Amino acid sequence: MKNDFSRRAFLKTASIAGLAIAASPTLVFGNPLKPSKVNVALIGTGLRGQNHLHNLLQRDDIEVSAICDVDGEMLGKALKMIREAGHREPATFTGSEYAYRDMLQLPDVQGVVISTPWLWHPIMAVDTMKAGKYAGVEVSAANTIEDCWDMVNASESSGSHCMILENVCYRRDIMAIHNMVKQGIFGELLHCHCGYQHDLREVLFNDGTQAYGGGVEFGEKGYSEARWRTEHYLKRNGDVYPTHGVGPIANMLDINRGNRFVSLTSTATKARGINNYIVEKGGADHPNAGLEWKMGDIVTTTITTANGESIIVLHDTTLPRPYSLGFRVQGTKGLWMKDGNQIYIEGTSDPHRWEPSQPYIDKYDHPLWKTYENLAEGSGHGGMDFFVMNAFVESIKRGIAPPLDVYDAAAWSVITPLSARSIANGSDPQDFPDFTRGRWIKRKPVFGVSSGY
Amino acid sequence: MKNDFSRRAFLKTASIAGLAIAASPTLVFGNPLKPSKVNVALIGTGLRGQNHLHNLLQRDDIEVSAICDVDGEMLGKALKMIREAGHREPATFTGSEYAYRDMLQLPDVQGVVISTPWLWHPIMAVDTMKAGKYAGVEVSAANTIEDCWDMVNASESSGSHCMILENVCYRRDIMAIHNMVKQGIFGELLHCHCGYQHDLREVLFNDGTQAYGGGVEFGEKGYSEARWRTEHYLKRNGDVYPTHGVGPIANMLDINRGNRFVSLTSTATKARGINNYIVEKGGADHPNAGLEWKMGDIVTTTITTANGESIIVLHDTTLPRPYSLGFRVQGTKGLWMKDGNQIYIEGTSDPHRWEPSQPYIDKYDHPLWKTYENLAEGSGHGGMDFFVMNAFVESIKRGIAPPLDVYDAAAWSVITPLSARSIANGSDPQDFPDFTRGRWIKRKPVFGVSSGY
Repeated sequence: MKNDFSRRAFLKTASIAGLAIAASPTLVFGNPLKPSKVNVALIGTGLRGQNHLHNLLQRDDIEVSAICDVDGEMLGKALKMIREAGHREPATFTGSEYAYRDMLQLPDVQGVVISTPWLWHPIMAVDTMKAGKYAGVEVSAANTIEDCWDMVNASESSGSHCMILENVCYRRDIMAIHNMVKQGIFGELLHCHCGYQHDLREVLFNDGTQAYGGGVEFGEKGYSEARWRTEHYLKRNGDVYPTHGVGPIANMLDINRGNRFVSLTSTATKARGINNYIVEKGGADHPNAGLEWKMGDIVTTTITTANGESIIVLHDTTLPRPYSLGFRVQGTKGLWMKDGNQIYIEGTSDPHRWEPSQPYIDKYDHPLWKTYENLAEGSGHGGMDFFVMNAFVESIKRGIAPPLDVYDAAAWSVITPLSARSIANGSDPQDFPDFTRGRWIKRKPVFGVSSGY
Repeated sequence: MKNDFSRRAFLKTASIAGLAIAASPTLVFGNPLKPSKVNVALIGTGLRGQNHLHNLLQRDDIEVSAICDVDGEMLGKALKMIREAGHREPATFTGSEYAYRDMLQLPDVQGVVISTPWLWHPIMAVDTMKAGKYAGVEVSAANTIEDCWDMVNASESSGSHCMILENVCYRRDIMAIHNMVKQGIFGELLHCHCGYQHDLREVLFNDGTQAYGGGVEFGEKGYSEARWRTEHYLKRNGDVYPTHGVGPIANMLDINRGNRFVSLTSTATKARGINNYIVEKGGADHPNAGLEWKMGDIVTTTITTANGESIIVLHDTTLPRPYSLGFRVQGTKGLWMKDGNQIYIEGTSDPHRWEPSQPYIDKYDHPLWKTYENLAEGSGHGGMDFFVMNAFVESIKRGIAPPLDVYDAAAWSVITPLSARSIANGSDPQDFPDFTRGRWIKRKPVFGVSSGY
């Protein structure tokens, strides 16, 4: 009842906000039940953290009361953003990798946005939940199977929530397709494709002073993501970044909510892309040209579900190629493919002929997008960054579990260690832990159900 | 030396033939070294056999000396075709499933085209080779692992050849991409996609009097393919039709010729498409509506190779969808995707942007297609049926192994039993037998190398 009431009250506010945006550059939010602002802190104020900060600063219903980063330069940039937005001076924490733990002692902080290197995600999310605060953790949320259990256990024992900040779940076309799925347009779902297919070579390597390209340095000599992401490619062979693809598909298939991931197999190709790139850009004599990169250029993972669907997930980030998350959603009545932007719906499409998908994307535009279209503009990544942060903030306001919760964070992120283990064992199938402890049977879908978050 | 000489002689003839075609509806072939015609017999004169017969009858370098089918109606249709083409009356064999063995006793027959239900392919191919004749066997060539070994052993012990008549290897765009692969345009290959994605519901079910649709009958009450193909869907769960996708990819990856398939995993979705179709078209009370179909609607297979590539193969034939073999060919310098007809080549394409693939397909048109374009027209399946039969006939003329040989037939067809076993065992990886007995290390690529066949 409370939730229903909150939602109605919020919708009313949201429509007022829709009017307000036209008059003011600052977005007007707020829930009449909780007039005070949501108090948010950030761990990690690098490029991704600054993006979240930008979106938070657009809102009138939040206060950024504290920020934390070991990198003084990045912390300074965030502080400058907050000052320039006219917000109150935040507390700052730095000087040690565990400075964030001091920040978590602040009693007023309600939610913590974690945008740090991958290895820190689960530790910081666990600490945040144990401190009684909402954790909003960037993707991928965890690196090992134990990480995933730690997060689930921390949430269950503390009663705190963890949201995985998987923005692609909120991509406009994805939400339209999600809408079509839930309306049964594709019939009963059977098979999906997705993946992270993004030429990251200029992200993985740079000259140590700029974020993208210009050199073949990484680790301590690199800048931004190259400082930490690239080493995973040197040491690991698995799908280290599955959630942009798997998150949206998991929502469509009701994973952890009437369905679950059961098992996977993974296969990796040989590794050629990075070495070729280093030799081409840095020369065969560059010290990095002699390194042996463990991660295969393309990792293929096939997941089976309790309800009998299959999902192909690709990781393809070290070869020259245009960006594509490679979505395909297929059921008993038809299918959509992002590659080629084509769709086929039996009884609607001409028999055996593709149609362009855009008219369907427009027709089934999700209510959330209709409501927030103006607010989402300029938020980053085509608007989806607005929605993911909005859902985090609105969940805190309502005191409810976020629509992408700790079980989603665990089930999606565990693909990484399971895929690595499958590859290391000749593609042997690996079982997914049931992080819901059987409650997936009873849990109900929530993503995209509310028109408020 | 002999082969080189033959090829030059043939090329000379082919160019004469290229002129002759303009003047005459009958195609002029012939190798000056062997002026006599190639003597061909057919086992199976159903719709597929008639298509091959049509193409054979266009040629002046073959004689169809015998035909065989248990189905008198189909045999009569083939006989009529031969008479109407003005060819000499062939010997006919019928009356028993083993009547073809009498035909194989004919000493003059050099090559036998086998277009029969799947279960007969390996038996007939083995008998043909044992009779000292070239076997040309339709796809897929075999159903069990033992079938594959039987074919290999029959070829090696008899010294006779077996060609798998995989026409898609000769599709114009495929041969252009093959050409690009061999010229290194994609760099070192890493990852390919392919599959048989074709809504076959009207092929699997009909009214018993027409080949496509009109009812939900199959088996003894069905007509044409529905008489035999559909039962595989009732009893088996695996990729029963892998070669249209895998054949072309195997050629690009030099499988059995410097590379080989090493292992696979397979996954099947639940089975919904056929039952839905029967209920919708025949009603819930139709006796076939109560059957339990074993084959999952979509079977996903991932193959690894000795050279470190991976291949995703899909079988998707019982759901509403447009036709697509779903090809993707990816290497260190770029990739082609048939879905969306898009290509990206580093250094040529605008960075991070797809290009339309057609200009590349045109530019890299394979020499075989340039030579035989006019002859291929009207041969069926967009011209590729001409090429596959031409390769069979020209191999017989030259007394050489066909470009798609018994090892290819075995390695491609064995995917079916291996995928079924993987699915039955929770996607456990399955090793490919090495049908070449290690000779893949030394064997050289031949497909698409000669401009004569």
